[in-house]
Amino acid sequence: MQAAEIDEQFPVVDIDSSALEAARMLAEDSLPGIVVVTADRQLYAVLPASQVVRFIVPSYVQDDPLLAGVLAESMADGAAEKLGGKTLRELLPQRQLTPPAVNADDTIIEVAAMMERLRSPLIAVMQQGRLHGVITASRLLAMALKCRLTEQAWTAVVTGLKTERPSSLSTWQFLEQPPDQRRSTAWHLGAG
Amino acid sequence: MQAAEIDEQFPVVDIDSSALEAARMLAEDSLPGIVVVTADRQLYAVLPASQVVRFIVPSYVQDDPLLAGVLAESMADGAAEKLGGKTLRELLPQRQLTPPAVNADDTIIEVAAMMERLRSPLIAVMQQGRLHGVITASRLLAMALKCRLTEQAWTAVVTGLKTERPSSLSTWQFLEQPPDQRRSTAWHLGAG
Repeated sequence: MQAAEIDEQFPVVDIDSSALEAARMLAEDSLPGIVVVTADRQLYAVLPASQVVRFIVPSYVQDDPLLAGVLAESMADGAAEKLGGKTLRELLPQRQLTPPAVNADDTIIEVAAMMERLRSPLIAVMQQGRLHGVITASRLLAMALKCRLTEQAWTAVVTGLKTERPSSLSTWQFLEQPPDQRRSTAWHLGAG
Repeated sequence: MQAAEIDEQFPVVDIDSSALEAARMLAEDSLPGIVVVTADRQLYAVLPASQVVRFIVPSYVQDDPLLAGVLAESMADGAAEKLGGKTLRELLPQRQLTPPAVNADDTIIEVAAMMERLRSPLIAVMQQGRLHGVITASRLLAMALKCRLTEQAWTAVVTGLKTERPSSLSTWQFLEQPPDQRRSTAWHLGAG
């Protein structure tokens, strides 16, 4: 399974567009991050949501995290003002970082390894220097699990595993359980 | 605005539950990460999606990322097999790390600063030693922007800004634009 086979469309934002707009898009669509491109649609940056949050943290707090604790609530509440009118270019580091990107023919493991190493929930997939698509962590996991299911189902057909070993707790059987059984150990804790 | 005012319910998984189940939940619901608790519902870990992906990366690739490139595709495709039957406890580091968490009365800026510093797309909110809720990066940005809107609207009422300075491109006006205008600089690039 190659990167270009599982990547997806993903909204991109221009480096000279409003940072407020980018933050709003991320918030409204619950995106795992944003992909920033130049005017000629070259990939410029891939920002995890946690780093977009950086836009609303005053620089003196970034330099000294302990200051966050002594900021008055009213000051904290006005933090989004920092974004007003600023473009992404103004807020991103001057020195361009290499965005997390893989080649179209890289394997799912190469994508996973980069994702994990860079702690990036999304990876750009490049083909001949152009952005082909994006792979998110949830997409990657979904495809890895789906692939496993297919493989197991195929194995079951060939070896008769399904009928011969009905009581073994295999991955394959787990995946066949109805969702409510599968999630028996997941629950919600209340929020205020 | 305090952490406990903006946190939300979030699915939690037991440390002794199946890692496959946790990965599947993340994939199906496109969650930014998972919250792991002990049998007595104490917070154990907060894992960003990018670190859940780690579960399907063989340890020898984690140790030497270059190996990812030489793994045959068929080997890469079988990676999810690694999860079969394993619990989260077996896959998480033996040494318990301090989960990214804030106190219920911490401000939005303290949450943002921690999120950015730890590159974590979700932060647990604790009240008297118990998990009160979770704040995701998109939730934080949404609340920061909403808060700003309220503040701006209030200012507009008081100062007559809205009618007196209709042509100035303020944050407040930006927020009043219809969504299709707001997103004029965002578009999609095709995926294969």
